[in-house]
Amino acid sequence: MNREPKTAEILCVGTELLMGNTVNTNATAIAQGLAEAGLNLYHQGVVGDNPQRLREALELALSRADVVITTGGLGPTYDDLTKETVAETLGRKLVPHEESVRWVEEYFRRLGRTPCPNNQKQAMMPEGATVFQNHNGTAPGCAVTGTGRWERKTAILLPGPPRECEPMFREQVLPYLRGESGSRLVSRSLYFYGIGESDLAQKLDRLMRESKNPTVAPYCKPGEVMLRVTARVEEGEDPAPILDPVVEEIRREAGEWLYGVNVGNLQTALVHTLLAKGLTVATAESCTGGLVAQRITSVPGASSAFEWGAVTYSCRTKHGMLGVSQKTLDKYGAVSVQTAMAMAHRARVKSGADIAVSVTGNAGPEPSEGKPVGLVYIGLESEKRTSVQEMHIRATESGGREYIRELAASRALYLALQEAKLWVK
Amino acid sequence: MNREPKTAEILCVGTELLMGNTVNTNATAIAQGLAEAGLNLYHQGVVGDNPQRLREALELALSRADVVITTGGLGPTYDDLTKETVAETLGRKLVPHEESVRWVEEYFRRLGRTPCPNNQKQAMMPEGATVFQNHNGTAPGCAVTGTGRWERKTAILLPGPPRECEPMFREQVLPYLRGESGSRLVSRSLYFYGIGESDLAQKLDRLMRESKNPTVAPYCKPGEVMLRVTARVEEGEDPAPILDPVVEEIRREAGEWLYGVNVGNLQTALVHTLLAKGLTVATAESCTGGLVAQRITSVPGASSAFEWGAVTYSCRTKHGMLGVSQKTLDKYGAVSVQTAMAMAHRARVKSGADIAVSVTGNAGPEPSEGKPVGLVYIGLESEKRTSVQEMHIRATESGGREYIRELAASRALYLALQEAKLWVK
Repeated sequence: MNREPKTAEILCVGTELLMGNTVNTNATAIAQGLAEAGLNLYHQGVVGDNPQRLREALELALSRADVVITTGGLGPTYDDLTKETVAETLGRKLVPHEESVRWVEEYFRRLGRTPCPNNQKQAMMPEGATVFQNHNGTAPGCAVTGTGRWERKTAILLPGPPRECEPMFREQVLPYLRGESGSRLVSRSLYFYGIGESDLAQKLDRLMRESKNPTVAPYCKPGEVMLRVTARVEEGEDPAPILDPVVEEIRREAGEWLYGVNVGNLQTALVHTLLAKGLTVATAESCTGGLVAQRITSVPGASSAFEWGAVTYSCRTKHGMLGVSQKTLDKYGAVSVQTAMAMAHRARVKSGADIAVSVTGNAGPEPSEGKPVGLVYIGLESEKRTSVQEMHIRATESGGREYIRELAASRALYLALQEAKLWVK
Repeated sequence: MNREPKTAEILCVGTELLMGNTVNTNATAIAQGLAEAGLNLYHQGVVGDNPQRLREALELALSRADVVITTGGLGPTYDDLTKETVAETLGRKLVPHEESVRWVEEYFRRLGRTPCPNNQKQAMMPEGATVFQNHNGTAPGCAVTGTGRWERKTAILLPGPPRECEPMFREQVLPYLRGESGSRLVSRSLYFYGIGESDLAQKLDRLMRESKNPTVAPYCKPGEVMLRVTARVEEGEDPAPILDPVVEEIRREAGEWLYGVNVGNLQTALVHTLLAKGLTVATAESCTGGLVAQRITSVPGASSAFEWGAVTYSCRTKHGMLGVSQKTLDKYGAVSVQTAMAMAHRARVKSGADIAVSVTGNAGPEPSEGKPVGLVYIGLESEKRTSVQEMHIRATESGGREYIRELAASRALYLALQEAKLWVK
């Protein structure tokens, strides 16, 4: 059993990546998995469907890394050449793989279609390969070791479409790599709201730099940061003694911004908290235009916690459909503390939900009613509490509108989550 | 003036890319721009913030390409090394760039902050470089040619954050590359709904393969395809004689699926059509949970065309808040032709909008009311017309729910667009 970390390299094959037709999410997903698995990754590359350039890139990657992971070029057509090029480079013959033939036939049967002769090409595999079944398409993947010059090297071939590549990598390749190393990885994901990545990194600087087992890695998106704490343990070893002290240290340093462990995201944390307590939420949105409702209902099972949302974009419908008083709208304007409070109040009264949140603001591009772009009010009302928060979101010119809407929706979800957590029903 | 197409290479620098913390959207945006500009791109690479590996990767890229475009590593901290490494490799000294010093000071002044000494490092530029101002951050970019061995080569350095990199590339680097080539590019974007990429590619196979000026390139996302037709013309030359015949040929072959030229996307096409005709739309959503409203309100100016949307997730609120009759819900169920029609009808009556669309269906993960996952009904009502469409969306296990919701929302937007186009008000 070899505990020395291996070096991996990612090589994505596909002219569509070089043309910019496709965002390379495969590379991100694989890089994340490799980091969690504790493999070193120093290079990623992209080449087109060209056998000469693919071969050169492959040989360079094999010369630098123990494991080379390719994506793409496993399809049935003549320009899908990855398997042929890798097999030739590693000195492996392609032979028919009986199980793959059956998988492809079965896949087509389920879709009510007939495989064409080209699909048989997809069932040819390098001799001696470990084959990975494709649950979402026709091209199996595989892991194959080299011969001669490359005898200590492994190539792992994955299909190109992310809906095929990413599940195959997570469900089959990571366990394969783990099996190779004789150990397994256990993670805890810590979700933070209200603190930026750089502030969090500064608070946890030493821990993030020095901690090797477990590793601590940040992942961020607008307004949120997630820290993944990952321990490498032997089969049968309890990960808690490795993970718990580090998680506790993170809680000590940054616990006030931590909204959940292994919760997925704000909307999932909210829906699960509501379901656990038998609570319901309603929404009344202006500038977010349905984004809060949409994020809540993206969570499977949301239907028991979310019954109703209103998107009242104009003053007329804030009054006519939601019942905000015309006096409030006239006196304070649509973007105001008072309107935000009234929207949350009316949403709770009309729906009978336990908690109602409202969003009203100016997402741009122009100031309106004399209110600047980025000024947003978030209202919350429950049986126990009424609150309004004012946000000033500073957005760049490009993409500003979506950024403001996303951050405002996150704040509404966060406030609803905090309220639901306080509730003992 | 050299019309020979140049070869470019993209080299992204950043440990966050190797850790999988960030999706490499910069590479996609740059690749798209290079394809439109008619430069050849055969390789993309990613390396970490390591000067040795960066230098090796840079030398390999310079040996293969005329222009190497880097992203990342222009920040103020000690591990931002791209500029230093490129300057050293190309044999160029770093010298203070007065305008950049002023830009950085001005940027901080706008944010009400004071620049730290490290920011002065960002105003150092390779001697003789063309400098690109950063409108969304502190790190300027630049283009610099090499000396000695690399005297025919150009390196273009861009900042890493996509919100800084992509506008700088579009607004400053593409015109710079065009200026180098003495010609400019003019594009038309054709948007299709209801035809898959492979079917469209088959219909236009010869055109897409053989057309060199203009080029024809497809970009796709779930349920939609966009074709970009790009002509290269001399300064002052009219692009219409080059573009028009190809656009006409595409219309002849696939016009029935074309929903607009240069329209951006379904929601933008819808909002602009509504605004042009003085029409309004309302939404009533179940399984899409606010996604249709959210996409409509993502378009600047939507407030004059969209007043109101309802997210009625439960039967109780479909009846109580929207006014769908209990009899309809009991007899046919929430996922039915009749409920979709009643939702659209009630949304139109309640809101007074000219057009109302409704979505009700099962987005999964489990069958409900005996209705399979992926069964969705889209209703539409206007003064002139009532219609319902049934969709059977086949989704893979992972990501299926979001996929179903996205495709259902697109269909609702498309139907509303078709209706709005027919309208003469």
